[in-house]
Amino acid sequence: MSNQEFRVEYDLLGERQVPQEAYYGVHTLRAKENFEISGTTVSCYPNLIIALAAVKQAAAVANAELGLLSPTLRDAIVAACIEIREGHLHEQFVVDVIQGGAGTSTNMNANEVICNRALELMGHKRGEYAHLHPNEHVNLAQSTNDVYPTALRIATFFAIEHLLEAMAQLHAAFDEKALEFAGLLKLGRTQLQDAVPMTLGQEFSTYAVMLEEDMARLREASALIREINLGATAIGTGITAHPDYAQKALEALQRITGIELSTAPNLIEATQDCGAFVQISGMLKRIAVKLSKTCNDLRLLSSGPRAGFGEINLPPMQAGSSIMPGKVNPVIPEVVNQVAFEVFGSDITVTFAAEGGQLQLNAFEPIIAYALFRSFKHLTAACITLADKCVKGITANAGHLRETMERSLALATALNPYIGYKNATSVAAEAHAHGTTIREVVLRRQLMTGAQLDEALRPEALIQPRIYGSLVDLIAAAGAGAEQDAVAK
Amino acid sequence: MSNQEFRVEYDLLGERQVPQEAYYGVHTLRAKENFEISGTTVSCYPNLIIALAAVKQAAAVANAELGLLSPTLRDAIVAACIEIREGHLHEQFVVDVIQGGAGTSTNMNANEVICNRALELMGHKRGEYAHLHPNEHVNLAQSTNDVYPTALRIATFFAIEHLLEAMAQLHAAFDEKALEFAGLLKLGRTQLQDAVPMTLGQEFSTYAVMLEEDMARLREASALIREINLGATAIGTGITAHPDYAQKALEALQRITGIELSTAPNLIEATQDCGAFVQISGMLKRIAVKLSKTCNDLRLLSSGPRAGFGEINLPPMQAGSSIMPGKVNPVIPEVVNQVAFEVFGSDITVTFAAEGGQLQLNAFEPIIAYALFRSFKHLTAACITLADKCVKGITANAGHLRETMERSLALATALNPYIGYKNATSVAAEAHAHGTTIREVVLRRQLMTGAQLDEALRPEALIQPRIYGSLVDLIAAAGAGAEQDAVAK
Amino acid sequence: MSNQEFRVEYDLLGERQVPQEAYYGVHTLRAKENFEISGTTVSCYPNLIIALAAVKQAAAVANAELGLLSPTLRDAIVAACIEIREGHLHEQFVVDVIQGGAGTSTNMNANEVICNRALELMGHKRGEYAHLHPNEHVNLAQSTNDVYPTALRIATFFAIEHLLEAMAQLHAAFDEKALEFAGLLKLGRTQLQDAVPMTLGQEFSTYAVMLEEDMARLREASALIREINLGATAIGTGITAHPDYAQKALEALQRITGIELSTAPNLIEATQDCGAFVQISGMLKRIAVKLSKTCNDLRLLSSGPRAGFGEINLPPMQAGSSIMPGKVNPVIPEVVNQVAFEVFGSDITVTFAAEGGQLQLNAFEPIIAYALFRSFKHLTAACITLADKCVKGITANAGHLRETMERSLALATALNPYIGYKNATSVAAEAHAHGTTIREVVLRRQLMTGAQLDEALRPEALIQPRIYGSLVDLIAAAGAGAEQDAVAK
Amino acid sequence: MSNQEFRVEYDLLGERQVPQEAYYGVHTLRAKENFEISGTTVSCYPNLIIALAAVKQAAAVANAELGLLSPTLRDAIVAACIEIREGHLHEQFVVDVIQGGAGTSTNMNANEVICNRALELMGHKRGEYAHLHPNEHVNLAQSTNDVYPTALRIATFFAIEHLLEAMAQLHAAFDEKALEFAGLLKLGRTQLQDAVPMTLGQEFSTYAVMLEEDMARLREASALIREINLGATAIGTGITAHPDYAQKALEALQRITGIELSTAPNLIEATQDCGAFVQISGMLKRIAVKLSKTCNDLRLLSSGPRAGFGEINLPPMQAGSSIMPGKVNPVIPEVVNQVAFEVFGSDITVTFAAEGGQLQLNAFEPIIAYALFRSFKHLTAACITLADKCVKGITANAGHLRETMERSLALATALNPYIGYKNATSVAAEAHAHGTTIREVVLRRQLMTGAQLDEALRPEALIQPRIYGSLVDLIAAAGAGAEQDAVAK
Repeated sequence: MSNQEFRVEYDLLGERQVPQEAYYGVHTLRAKENFEISGTTVSCYPNLIIALAAVKQAAAVANAELGLLSPTLRDAIVAACIEIREGHLHEQFVVDVIQGGAGTSTNMNANEVICNRALELMGHKRGEYAHLHPNEHVNLAQSTNDVYPTALRIATFFAIEHLLEAMAQLHAAFDEKALEFAGLLKLGRTQLQDAVPMTLGQEFSTYAVMLEEDMARLREASALIREINLGATAIGTGITAHPDYAQKALEALQRITGIELSTAPNLIEATQDCGAFVQISGMLKRIAVKLSKTCNDLRLLSSGPRAGFGEINLPPMQAGSSIMPGKVNPVIPEVVNQVAFEVFGSDITVTFAAEGGQLQLNAFEPIIAYALFRSFKHLTAACITLADKCVKGITANAGHLRETMERSLALATALNPYIGYKNATSVAAEAHAHGTTIREVVLRRQLMTGAQLDEALRPEALIQPRIYGSLVDLIAAAGAGAEQDAVAK
Repeated sequence: MSNQEFRVEYDLLGERQVPQEAYYGVHTLRAKENFEISGTTVSCYPNLIIALAAVKQAAAVANAELGLLSPTLRDAIVAACIEIREGHLHEQFVVDVIQGGAGTSTNMNANEVICNRALELMGHKRGEYAHLHPNEHVNLAQSTNDVYPTALRIATFFAIEHLLEAMAQLHAAFDEKALEFAGLLKLGRTQLQDAVPMTLGQEFSTYAVMLEEDMARLREASALIREINLGATAIGTGITAHPDYAQKALEALQRITGIELSTAPNLIEATQDCGAFVQISGMLKRIAVKLSKTCNDLRLLSSGPRAGFGEINLPPMQAGSSIMPGKVNPVIPEVVNQVAFEVFGSDITVTFAAEGGQLQLNAFEPIIAYALFRSFKHLTAACITLADKCVKGITANAGHLRETMERSLALATALNPYIGYKNATSVAAEAHAHGTTIREVVLRRQLMTGAQLDEALRPEALIQPRIYGSLVDLIAAAGAGAEQDAVAK
Repeated sequence: MSNQEFRVEYDLLGERQVPQEAYYGVHTLRAKENFEISGTTVSCYPNLIIALAAVKQAAAVANAELGLLSPTLRDAIVAACIEIREGHLHEQFVVDVIQGGAGTSTNMNANEVICNRALELMGHKRGEYAHLHPNEHVNLAQSTNDVYPTALRIATFFAIEHLLEAMAQLHAAFDEKALEFAGLLKLGRTQLQDAVPMTLGQEFSTYAVMLEEDMARLREASALIREINLGATAIGTGITAHPDYAQKALEALQRITGIELSTAPNLIEATQDCGAFVQISGMLKRIAVKLSKTCNDLRLLSSGPRAGFGEINLPPMQAGSSIMPGKVNPVIPEVVNQVAFEVFGSDITVTFAAEGGQLQLNAFEPIIAYALFRSFKHLTAACITLADKCVKGITANAGHLRETMERSLALATALNPYIGYKNATSVAAEAHAHGTTIREVVLRRQLMTGAQLDEALRPEALIQPRIYGSLVDLIAAAGAGAEQDAVAK
Repeated sequence: MSNQEFRVEYDLLGERQVPQEAYYGVHTLRAKENFEISGTTVSCYPNLIIALAAVKQAAAVANAELGLLSPTLRDAIVAACIEIREGHLHEQFVVDVIQGGAGTSTNMNANEVICNRALELMGHKRGEYAHLHPNEHVNLAQSTNDVYPTALRIATFFAIEHLLEAMAQLHAAFDEKALEFAGLLKLGRTQLQDAVPMTLGQEFSTYAVMLEEDMARLREASALIREINLGATAIGTGITAHPDYAQKALEALQRITGIELSTAPNLIEATQDCGAFVQISGMLKRIAVKLSKTCNDLRLLSSGPRAGFGEINLPPMQAGSSIMPGKVNPVIPEVVNQVAFEVFGSDITVTFAAEGGQLQLNAFEPIIAYALFRSFKHLTAACITLADKCVKGITANAGHLRETMERSLALATALNPYIGYKNATSVAAEAHAHGTTIREVVLRRQLMTGAQLDEALRPEALIQPRIYGSLVDLIAAAGAGAEQDAVAK
């Protein structure tokens, strides 16, 4: 390679050759070499890059308003930031996402890329930092310690929005099925044992409601991360920043992102505290718990086809087995389960990283960011995959549902108000022992008439509360024989 | 033992001898024998017992209002419940807290104890269930599946209140120290490396603010668990319950507990969903993360006495070592750290249990309850212990704080706006290499005058944002020599 | 209370009144007051107390051999230790198990109780430390930092032995069922979908083999904790100890406990390293994973009775529901699941505590001990409970098993070697679509004769590998029509 | 695109257009579309692909030996497998690593790529499956359920080997420093408080020994994953496989991989059991715990430069701060900490996935594989990074080390054997109160002579056990004044 292909840059540790075509500089170069861990670079997280550019743009605008940055430099920085926010130069963010230094390398990477692009826009060459300097100007009145957390929060806000959209799609899919299955009576189950009747529509509606609640909670949590610490600089005292900087930068950042942000009341606390990320991670875990539970249910309800629950059919998406012909497996719920398991793990990673923060800063925010963004990405994909490739195609085995319900011993529960828990227990036991039905035993024992049974076991009566006749009398009568229930010997 | 000491009770599985003095009955007896796991019984959780009694009382009132329970039976049940809520008969809750059956055994235990006490109050003997029956009357229109979660939520509400009080005490202790230490300048640290100045008061104020935020978040989360599923009965369809029962029971329960409760809009969902507990557990984890981080800091700041940070002194609470004379250890922060580690573990337990729920019910609520209540109890104790036995007695080594601040290379940061990041870096490097101070190098290099330095390094200027002179010019001047910074070869 | 009831003791922090009847002293008293967290005291862990007494006894013997302790004092200490090892005075271990100070308070508690009991045996009064001193003599040449970890390891060894016995009981129960069910053909399942045939005996044998493997692994892990650091004193350098002390104390400790112990080759490392506990905890997690998986299976196989898998029946242990008459739930597997969930959480607690160790000591060993011992205790109880109250009473629904197997579409797999995967797939699809059987479709299509089918589907042929006829030819023939399988357009 | 660019393939679900240049087929295509989750494909895990090819090659060899596969087909399959094992065609493994279906899609992907490459080698076109079929021939006598776990184990074996090499490098780096720092006396610390003396060499030697132990444990664990279930086919019964197949395939696989493998004694158990992966994951967690603890120590010991421990200097790898000039941060230990946090999280993911396995198969092995391989990769990178970019460049501040040691109050411990714990405590307390040294107080009080002190505090005497004079007498004398220690009032 000839000399033309490199430029020389300097830092604290000495000089280094930087590829001439690179927009990043010496700080990024060293970080790239220092952190060869995951192979996944910041460039894989466009939301974070866009958020960083928005923060840098806001800082330039604020500093210019305060007379600390010339209009010329401001315009160049702003133009470069806009390009990045539009999706350009992302490949220049070459530092590994798993990095030491509390995000400094990502911030430096942003400073250098913005600076060199701005230099070009001003007619200079990359690396001619006498005209515009990554630290003196692009990073003016900033520290990694306020820029990076602020950018993480904005990126998290974007990620929340995407996840909410995906959840809404999944919600709609379940809702539609709830309507479709509204008339299908079936047996509910508790502890995997046959319980009392419900409709398949009610069952699917549950999945929709769970999502609805989680969406509401996620929206609440979203408020937590709209509080930023921009203006804190190194440790929250605002050293090197103008007293009006935090407010002006906030206003600019709100304009740029369209997000309703606020500045944390105590910047020292805000600079070291990862509580909001812990809580967001906990929220993702909550969502994952529900999704996983829902997928466990779908796999259970569709177990079979002949030796399982066999209540519903998931749409076949691929041949299930390389050896068992015709086998179709619940591959979509399975992949969602696995995403949930990863989210549970990532929550532990976030917990360790948050707990490990010391004194005025948490040095481990990069892994928090990585873990969180991965969870967001995979959960979002999982919701859409589950909606489109599974829920929408689910069909019900209506006949089988009805039949198992009618043969169920659990119908005895509906007779509690008529014949009492004790009698009903005895009826259920006999039906179980003789392989017969509740109805048959009740009639044989003349506990109720056929008409009374018809009324008591009316489908619509079974799936909601109801008014019983003079229940107290009934129970009193039924209890007549119970005197010996407990006799002190 | 003679026959007189036992009474005989019956259930589905046959007859059993129950100790005559026991208020519990055959169901409890079997559960006691079935679950010999932890040795910790429900009696160790008075909040849960009180909450259960409140629910049973509310149900009796509601059923009576609906004409389904006679005033006589209602009065007896209510009286028994009140006694339990006042702290009596708790030792009769003998089932292990780690139990199968989704809480059925705890519910049955409550039914039986209330029933037998009510029987006594009515002038009958324990076990004479013909007069009042644990299932027919005490459990009327109820299922474990709505009673138990409702009671857990009320008990959790109580636990949150206690924790908030403890956190308030700890908050006050930190706040007081923040005031006491407001004038003590010291060096902040990021990534354990000397950073820029702050006051020790600011540092302690941070711990107070963290707690404040966590308290606010916990109060928000408290709303989640005020939504109950009473009236859901077995799976949420309300089978066996009167259509007006849920509303009347809610009103009664609000009167009895004084808590502003509401009934979940979808009872089927509410009966199987443990999301609120997952979120509460996540909230406790958030609190534990902060407490642990704070204790890590206290241990670090008090490290020494001679070969550590040595900034503060924790009050000595006990001899630190059985071998090293005079050693005093940070035993109180250490115990708080360990409580936090347990809370982190319990959150995983809750996650597994919540994820494992199937179809219409989560069978694993008992371990969720146990894990949560243990976390609440230990966190509450930890906050009070930390406040009373540590924070209140902390003293500062003011001289050492000031001295390390003045010798710090980090003061170079304050000169950024005057001499630029690049010059400041060079000054810091020289001071480090020669073991001298920032001030000395700046003066020797004639970068600023003594008066300018005095102004730039004024203590009050170091710990907050400030207005600099014509910064742009300064930087431009400083940058004059930077042209060679990057030269494309 | 009168003055007579107290004695005065002194320590670093001043004088305190200790109850005259207490065997513990001032150090224990302060620790008791300092750590009011869980309410669970060291007295709840007899194995730990016995192990501590063994270590103290060994130290006294070794010091006496080295001429550093008089025979009189040695004899008194030894006698007191033997009493404690026999189960006496355990109630004097009053410090909370969740404690700061790296176990110092537990060690001090042991020193004081042993000292005061030894004083009594020598004819002195408790507290007359001029004759025998808790630190000077009972703790001679020792530090908490070698005594406590050594005792934890010995206590862990005991706990492993107990768990292995419980696992052996459970193993035997599964093994017996494997034999009992050896002749019952059934359908295996993968991904909850009907798969190929096996016997119920094979299924239960799997649970036995899993346990067997886990037992073997646990025995291996047991070796890890037989390496001790006694003689390390404060940080592993052996300061204050005689050069021959470590060896002599080891020999004495082996004689006393009967355990084959060894001294760690690097005592500094051994004093700060919790790796063995992390690994033991990981092993317990492995065991819990399997137990939980096994219980999930038992719950699934016994789901029903009429609308589930219905393959086996768990013995009814208690009435399952307070509302649903006759319902019997899988309460024993459920409680085992919950124990597993707790073990998973405790492993996280151990991980945090181990990672949090700093420099020459891990201050968080008490919570490691607490978490581990709790897991051991609950897992041991869970294994015995599962064996005695569930597995031994399991029965099979032989008819249902056979019937579902014969109707299964999965039998098509057994025809792969005869008609090929592609043909078999088509057969299975048709049988599924028309609700008929594999046999019927194969005969109708004349792919095989009835005799060939009989041979191919012989039960014993389905559950093991077998030799097929000229398979290659068969496949070649079957594949004749497959030419169009893939045509490049 | 023209028709020429696609070929049509069929499966259970119908026909699909596969890109003509693709070596994968219809099954892979569907899986690729079904699982759009992480964007990380199996192609990123070369070890897994190589292991899969080895298994397929072994199966072909075994089947040919048994006369079930013609030499022609065998040769083609073997040649294709060898190419893949040499690194070719990896980009054809296009399925997402997070996938449903228990690995079926990865197995199908391997079948199809091998088949199409073998077809080419035989002179046919891709997709002409009449000559060689992915399922009938490449997958002959196999199921995903034995192929995939076997391949995972072989890939894990490779990963263990790489990690061991990286750990050996790190071990060597610590060992070298231990030698370099062998003569530097310093103060040890327990609970972050000054404790007794040691050498910096001893401290670094500890880190080496920790790694050594972990390497030994990892080697032991490696044995666990050399037991495979090849021959189990669908559920372990070996259905469709020849009775001699398992043995012949094992022998072939050993020859091909050079790994000493064995066949699990119970294939049904081995097919559903993920215990070995849980244990390997636990082992990685153990390693990560130690690495993280070590990095915590390095960060602590290098804290400063002026207001921290300041004992060692980490080599500066990059400018530490975008705002604080001259600041150098411990970025390499920080990144290693974060890798550890990720490993802790991944262990939870593995635990959830392993626990979630049901009946005859664990459907969640793909996420287990992904989590494990990620941990292996990042831990391996972390060890090398820590060795090369941090440990090798560490320097010590010898003067500061010695000085803090000599001023330490902890030296009082070394006087225990001379003046007793009680006197030594009093000396330490006085020295602390008056800011003086142990030596000065001892001399002033005339407890020992200067010569005695010199002897007692000889450096080499402080860092190992030693023989004291007539210790018993000394203590007896010192204890003379202790009679009032405890007086019963």
